[in-house]
Amino acid sequence: MWGMIATWRMALEGIEKGCNLLKEGGNAGDAIETAVREVEDFPFYKSVGYGGLPNEEMEVELDAAFMDGDTLDIGAVAAIKDFANPVSIARRLSKEPVNNLLVGEGAEKFAHKEGFERKNMLTDRAMIHYKNRVKEMTQTELKPYSGHDTVGMVCLDTAGKMTAATSTSGLFMKKKGRVGDSPVSGSGFYVDSKAGGATATGLGEDVMKGCVSYEIVRLMKEGIHPQEACERAVAMFDQELKERRGKAGDMSLVAMNNKGEWGVATNIEGFSFAVATENEAPMVYLTKNVNGKCIHEPASQEWMENYMKTRTAPLKEL
Amino acid sequence: MWGMIATWRMALEGIEKGCNLLKEGGNAGDAIETAVREVEDFPFYKSVGYGGLPNEEMEVELDAAFMDGDTLDIGAVAAIKDFANPVSIARRLSKEPVNNLLVGEGAEKFAHKEGFERKNMLTDRAMIHYKNRVKEMTQTELKPYSGHDTVGMVCLDTAGKMTAATSTSGLFMKKKGRVGDSPVSGSGFYVDSKAGGATATGLGEDVMKGCVSYEIVRLMKEGIHPQEACERAVAMFDQELKERRGKAGDMSLVAMNNKGEWGVATNIEGFSFAVATENEAPMVYLTKNVNGKCIHEPASQEWMENYMKTRTAPLKEL
Repeated sequence: MWGMIATWRMALEGIEKGCNLLKEGGNAGDAIETAVREVEDFPFYKSVGYGGLPNEEMEVELDAAFMDGDTLDIGAVAAIKDFANPVSIARRLSKEPVNNLLVGEGAEKFAHKEGFERKNMLTDRAMIHYKNRVKEMTQTELKPYSGHDTVGMVCLDTAGKMTAATSTSGLFMKKKGRVGDSPVSGSGFYVDSKAGGATATGLGEDVMKGCVSYEIVRLMKEGIHPQEACERAVAMFDQELKERRGKAGDMSLVAMNNKGEWGVATNIEGFSFAVATENEAPMVYLTKNVNGKCIHEPASQEWMENYMKTRTAPLKEL
Repeated sequence: MWGMIATWRMALEGIEKGCNLLKEGGNAGDAIETAVREVEDFPFYKSVGYGGLPNEEMEVELDAAFMDGDTLDIGAVAAIKDFANPVSIARRLSKEPVNNLLVGEGAEKFAHKEGFERKNMLTDRAMIHYKNRVKEMTQTELKPYSGHDTVGMVCLDTAGKMTAATSTSGLFMKKKGRVGDSPVSGSGFYVDSKAGGATATGLGEDVMKGCVSYEIVRLMKEGIHPQEACERAVAMFDQELKERRGKAGDMSLVAMNNKGEWGVATNIEGFSFAVATENEAPMVYLTKNVNGKCIHEPASQEWMENYMKTRTAPLKEL
């Protein structure tokens, strides 16, 4: 069996590429890196890689992670600027004996010395988003933050090896140096080939209060199906946050176990995800949370067309 | 009931100060911040705050975290330079609505704007350690890394509020921008006033492969005594690492539940820790791991005297 699951519609083309590798016996490390790079490279996704929205200083600072479920090797970068593919740097770091999580300038030095591709990750389009937001913020009482659509993936290859990876530009208008859950083990991602893997998207500051990815993998290790594991962990933690803080940040988790069974849970409306396995062609679903049960429906042709149309629609400066 | 537990002998004086606050009804946030600051300020501890050993570029980069077990608020800084008390910046960040984890230059900008004390954290003594290590490394096949004695604390106040905090300069000779487990929720620390808290010291790169602090708190939430929770989590994860990687990094965990009961487990020889509760005067113990059971013995007068003597002994450049 092989399979891949990922947060958000934007992962679809990456999943397709990754699955082509898995189908031919490729390994879960190569497949997931290929898949995440595809998302990082696409300029119209404004929360990952090239075209990602900048921080309050108009710098695109990126977070990414890679985990190997056989060895538990982890590599991650945070608040890294001007490199094309943070996930590849993360994967490279996972092979170091120590110094596996590097941030800021130190991460950039490492990536430079290792020969990774430099790229100004700020697109004209992201710049217009920035300028428009600045104008809006002076005019209205808009929430200063919105949009935190991390791409997170879990992958299983035919040899039974599992991997997890994440990549994100984080909160739009975040403070310089702000790091979310994506490079944080147990919160943004976790994978153990003995059980399965999980990864998160949402408000990183809240996700890391609950180590939700670790908790889902732990439940799968107890033999619980990924769908139930996701629903239980998300429902429990959403309730804890509401009880203690009066509210819970957005939180959506996807998981796959080492049999290729998968699950998804969210506390928001309209969460989309992409999944494919040996038995299921790549497909985008939308999830509804109905009293704690998450119902997944394939995205309609209309939804899919509208998605790409709105992503690539011309953008004007206000 | 009130109480505090912390990693390493170096926490003793901080614990004493913190307990003086708790005794008079002070809150767990103030007590733990006071206690950690005491360790940060002491110039002879070479793995925390002032006097901490530098990275390979001879910069002292510091990591710290603070967590509130009532609200689950987390604040943390990583790879921050030239500020006297990282734990206080972490606590201040825990009160922000978002942007709770800041790294590198962004963390420094925040701390500066908030008026935190600037301080060159590189002492003459740390500089000698650095120079000696550079010389040794050219002469012999020494391990490039050693010493990773994070101070981590868990605190319970008379109102039942619990907190956790960490502070460290990380691995001696680490790469610029390297971040360990100390500012990583679930790995370096975790606390939930409904159950208890735990915090770690050891090889951060390995601790974060297992979310060990979260796991211990989770076990305590199931009603398991902190001692058993620590032993189980450490033994299980140490074994997983050895099975998959052939070895496990150093790992020592301390925990306290919301009744003031405590526990400690380690996979190394000679781990010391400090603990105090309403019923127990501040005391330093040494722990031995005997077939998975950890036996704690009060440190002898001789050990205590020798400890401070070696810490403060004159240091010569080679």
